[in-house]
Amino acid sequence: MSMKIAVDAMGGDHAPENPVAGALLAARELGAEIVLVGQQDRIESILKDHQAAPNIEIVHADEVIGMDESPATALRRKRGSSIHKAAQLLRDGEVGGVVSAGNTGAVMITAKLYAGCITGVDRPALSVVLPTLLGHMVLLDVGANIDPKSQHLVQFGVMGHFLSTQILGVQNPKVGLLSIGEEAGKGTELIREGHAALSRAPVNFIGNVESNDIYSGTTDVVVCDGFTGNVVLKTSEAVVETMLYLLREELSSSRRGKLGARLARESFRNYRRRVDYAEWGGANLLGIKGSCVICHGRSSAKAIKNGIRVALEYGDQRVSERIEEALCGLANGETAKSPAPAVLSSSSD
Amino acid sequence: MSMKIAVDAMGGDHAPENPVAGALLAARELGAEIVLVGQQDRIESILKDHQAAPNIEIVHADEVIGMDESPATALRRKRGSSIHKAAQLLRDGEVGGVVSAGNTGAVMITAKLYAGCITGVDRPALSVVLPTLLGHMVLLDVGANIDPKSQHLVQFGVMGHFLSTQILGVQNPKVGLLSIGEEAGKGTELIREGHAALSRAPVNFIGNVESNDIYSGTTDVVVCDGFTGNVVLKTSEAVVETMLYLLREELSSSRRGKLGARLARESFRNYRRRVDYAEWGGANLLGIKGSCVICHGRSSAKAIKNGIRVALEYGDQRVSERIEEALCGLANGETAKSPAPAVLSSSSD
Repeated sequence: MSMKIAVDAMGGDHAPENPVAGALLAARELGAEIVLVGQQDRIESILKDHQAAPNIEIVHADEVIGMDESPATALRRKRGSSIHKAAQLLRDGEVGGVVSAGNTGAVMITAKLYAGCITGVDRPALSVVLPTLLGHMVLLDVGANIDPKSQHLVQFGVMGHFLSTQILGVQNPKVGLLSIGEEAGKGTELIREGHAALSRAPVNFIGNVESNDIYSGTTDVVVCDGFTGNVVLKTSEAVVETMLYLLREELSSSRRGKLGARLARESFRNYRRRVDYAEWGGANLLGIKGSCVICHGRSSAKAIKNGIRVALEYGDQRVSERIEEALCGLANGETAKSPAPAVLSSSSD
Repeated sequence: MSMKIAVDAMGGDHAPENPVAGALLAARELGAEIVLVGQQDRIESILKDHQAAPNIEIVHADEVIGMDESPATALRRKRGSSIHKAAQLLRDGEVGGVVSAGNTGAVMITAKLYAGCITGVDRPALSVVLPTLLGHMVLLDVGANIDPKSQHLVQFGVMGHFLSTQILGVQNPKVGLLSIGEEAGKGTELIREGHAALSRAPVNFIGNVESNDIYSGTTDVVVCDGFTGNVVLKTSEAVVETMLYLLREELSSSRRGKLGARLARESFRNYRRRVDYAEWGGANLLGIKGSCVICHGRSSAKAIKNGIRVALEYGDQRVSERIEEALCGLANGETAKSPAPAVLSSSSD
């Protein structure tokens, strides 16, 4: 792993502290070469409280894009921001990947603008890896394209396939299309067209699936438009938060509840960790040249480190290149199911 | 409450046992007059195990529509089903409402076909009441219209408004439009048009909201298309199930966890009850003539009783009539904000 990763030191609810601490963890534990991008004096003052890591450098960026700023406005007005500088490093080949816990929209459009798309991808897609009852799955798009066409759903399916094989190590992942019923004829026009298009794509398409298939572990890759995916993700987060709140409320409402909770403290700690979105390593912007991992705003140092690990693996496993090869094959008429195994088997070695 | 309610005795995972038991509870505790629709011999054999209730009658229906049958096929081929018979009773004015824990799609299309829509409603919407951190909220549409136009979103907003005021007792409920960002310009074309149309509607429209606003309690009515709403509902259910599973797994993985769980047993029981979808009284098909409540397939007797209570209140509070008045006012040009307070204040007395 010799590829450098740019870390947006100014992005996130706990910046620059957590991004810097996460970069240090990655530098030490993963041997990653990190470029911290942001306000130099603030980064240095955090670094000097920690044990030095030789494989960390700093690139100064004056401006900071707020978590709630309009991405389009930020793109125009804050060209000196840490997000811009990081994306420029990616474009110039100074780094192979960017990791940010900052403003998701701003990171997405800036990375796409500077780095550009790989051949065969019209629109990058934002993907997340979610825990299931059996392991992990890939959901995409979760917010980059609110109004895609069926050919984009095919690209999402192919990108999700390679993320699943190369990063999660799944053999011949099952790819499903999110709908509100399993029959092919059900759903919106996009779903019906997407079902037909994915049936011809070089992936193991299992047909329409429903939201419960996301968490049950029966599907490895779930494809949807960015509006629906974003709603799934935010609903999931909201339900997790609400469930944790209600659990706390119930347990603290009686003496026996409080005692039981204290006794099972360790179990509750593990539980919270398993359901905490911030710990899952972030979202991957698939389809741009290079890797771009967008971590949750409230990421801990460990979550940032995990984001860096994913960005490194993404380059190491040549995910972009494999996606490009598969989509070029698709464009060259390899649309039937027959040539698919060749593409797929070369991908999982 | 003198209105009769037809209960589909054959609908649900635990039919006819739970629907019959639920009807008995409602007859006794609410004094409801119930018509049990289904296979007479099976209903009678359950009834004779219980204390008699004079306000229950039976209407025989031979056929049963399975939970997973295609609604369209069932509509054509099983005209002797309990769902058909119940919908016919509604059409003929024999009952004021129908309650079923059966095949949601079949109940929806059959009830709409036989009972028809109230004036001003083109398309009925399926609504659910969900628990929030602060109380309860109304989400609609959750599956009746996967591809509505902006004027339908307005009708959903008005229907949700009256469900919120009349059934939940909320004063001047805040109505939001589900999107993936709060700015009016964000979201799909439907969202942008819906935002403009709802801004002119006689409801307290607070603009676009996100999924987290559903559970936080900051919005009383959340409007969306039926595809998105169905995804929200099924995602919520899946996350609740997954969270409960993981909690059980963590607590049972250590001795201290098991002891703590046993000690706090009562708290966990209350917790499960609060997050159990089957206990929330079901979904309301708004916009048809009469009331139609579709309970969760795995409804307990108590959940069926709650569904019957909602169906009774719906008639008692004249929800249909109020929706009709408001939508006719809207059609007659009362589109400005000014006449709204009159409509709204008359609705909450």
